[in-house]
Amino acid sequence: ADFRVSVLTVSDTVAMGAGPDRSGPRAVSVINSSSERLGGARVVEAAVVPDEVAQIQNVLRRWSDIEKMDLVITLGGTGFTMRDVTPEATKPLIEKETPGLLHVMMQESLKVTPFAMLSRSAAGIRGSTLIINMPGNPNAVAECMEALLPALKHALKQLRGDKREKNPRHV
Amino acid sequence: ADFRVSVLTVSDTVAMGAGPDRSGPRAVSVINSSSERLGGARVVEAAVVPDEVAQIQNVLRRWSDIEKMDLVITLGGTGFTMRDVTPEATKPLIEKETPGLLHVMMQESLKVTPFAMLSRSAAGIRGSTLIINMPGNPNAVAECMEALLPALKHALKQLRGDKREKNPRHV
Amino acid sequence: ADFRVSVLTVSDTVAMGAGPDRSGPRAVSVINSSSERLGGARVVEAAVVPDEVAQIQNVLRRWSDIEKMDLVITLGGTGFTMRDVTPEATKPLIEKETPGLLHVMMQESLKVTPFAMLSRSAAGIRGSTLIINMPGNPNAVAECMEALLPALKHALKQLRGDKREKNPRHV
Ligand code: NA
Repeated sequence: ADFRVSVLTVSDTVAMGAGPDRSGPRAVSVINSSSERLGGARVVEAAVVPDEVAQIQNVLRRWSDIEKMDLVITLGGTGFTMRDVTPEATKPLIEKETPGLLHVMMQESLKVTPFAMLSRSAAGIRGSTLIINMPGNPNAVAECMEALLPALKHALKQLRGDKREKNPRHV
Repeated sequence: ADFRVSVLTVSDTVAMGAGPDRSGPRAVSVINSSSERLGGARVVEAAVVPDEVAQIQNVLRRWSDIEKMDLVITLGGTGFTMRDVTPEATKPLIEKETPGLLHVMMQESLKVTPFAMLSRSAAGIRGSTLIINMPGNPNAVAECMEALLPALKHALKQLRGDKREKNPRHV
Repeated sequence: ADFRVSVLTVSDTVAMGAGPDRSGPRAVSVINSSSERLGGARVVEAAVVPDEVAQIQNVLRRWSDIEKMDLVITLGGTGFTMRDVTPEATKPLIEKETPGLLHVMMQESLKVTPFAMLSRSAAGIRGSTLIINMPGNPNAVAECMEALLPALKHALKQLRGDKREKNPRHV
């Protein structure tokens, strides 16, 4: 299948060069090392934007509408501070919500730490692109990917319209 | 109480006669065999529509606004393919969301299979009718009903306005 | 920190003086007895309104926009009866949803009773105020607070803009 994945780090600190991007490279590493379980997914693009709705949305629109990525992962901006606006930037762009992905990420993350409840992540489909918000904490990214891995390949195959994948188990 | 239930199978394949409806009859069987635990619920109507928003909504409106069903279960169209639009057809018709029903269906289904995370089901109240999306997989229907059974009778009694049911435990 | 908390009991019965407010005092007691774990939170105001959207919203607006409470807890009006409208009153006022708080309250409440699935609670941020719906049952209030306690202090600190709290664990 060779699913094309892109990773967006949302962070004022990283965008202004005031600190290293720890979550972006970690996400790339997690995804690429799970490539086989993800049906041949590979990260083909990565970017950093500050915690600004317009800039987040510009990248999400380009990656879904023009570059037609299979999967877009955002990192960070999902907390409770004034600057955390990634879910608010994402939700208006989503055409079809995918609440089960949020449920399983939350459920599994809560097993690691109660602070997981502070994630306000959104997730859903725009066109043929699956967009998933994840917290910026590097460990959270790994935990969230781990939670999704058992079914994410099937999600991406369904999005591609592979009819054999229409009923892996649940329609 | 004798709650009136109707079941809507949403499937292009079944609607065009290209395959049998396996989930509809299974849902009818599950509901009728749980009739007592459901306060005397019985399936009084069933229909099949293709994966088209307008056709799904026409049936949901008729069953809630005119026929005033107590419970409407939809089957199928909750996945990630282009044709899966049942939640998108359902959500605009819902007046009061019932997220706890979705939570418990997802939580219990995930214990059976990780593919449960691919369900995008919506659920909520329109007038005095409770509408619940379930995946089209026949086993998923049984699992979702099993998850809801411990409280579904109370939900339907509250909808009917039975004041004795206002506080079974949680208001 | 000394977080300021207010508690709103939503109940026709209590508002018309036809019955005692059992959940309000219980919530005050639970919060004040957890004050230390909540970073010095204390209940500074309490009110009762009937199950009317406009009256619920008037209080929520005053407490968030004018009195700038850190935390507002509503009690009741989250069930399936016609009169239950607290989530519908709350959602239009929320600027940033906090689904993880709902997830953990539901998950933990379901361990106590399956009737927890009947809660339709909403939760989210308005300005710098966190608003959380809880069921009116006095035991449910205690269970929901217990579920939130491990991270609620951090949520309130993030809302206050305490940068040291930006990454307790998950951003
Ligand atoms: Na759960």
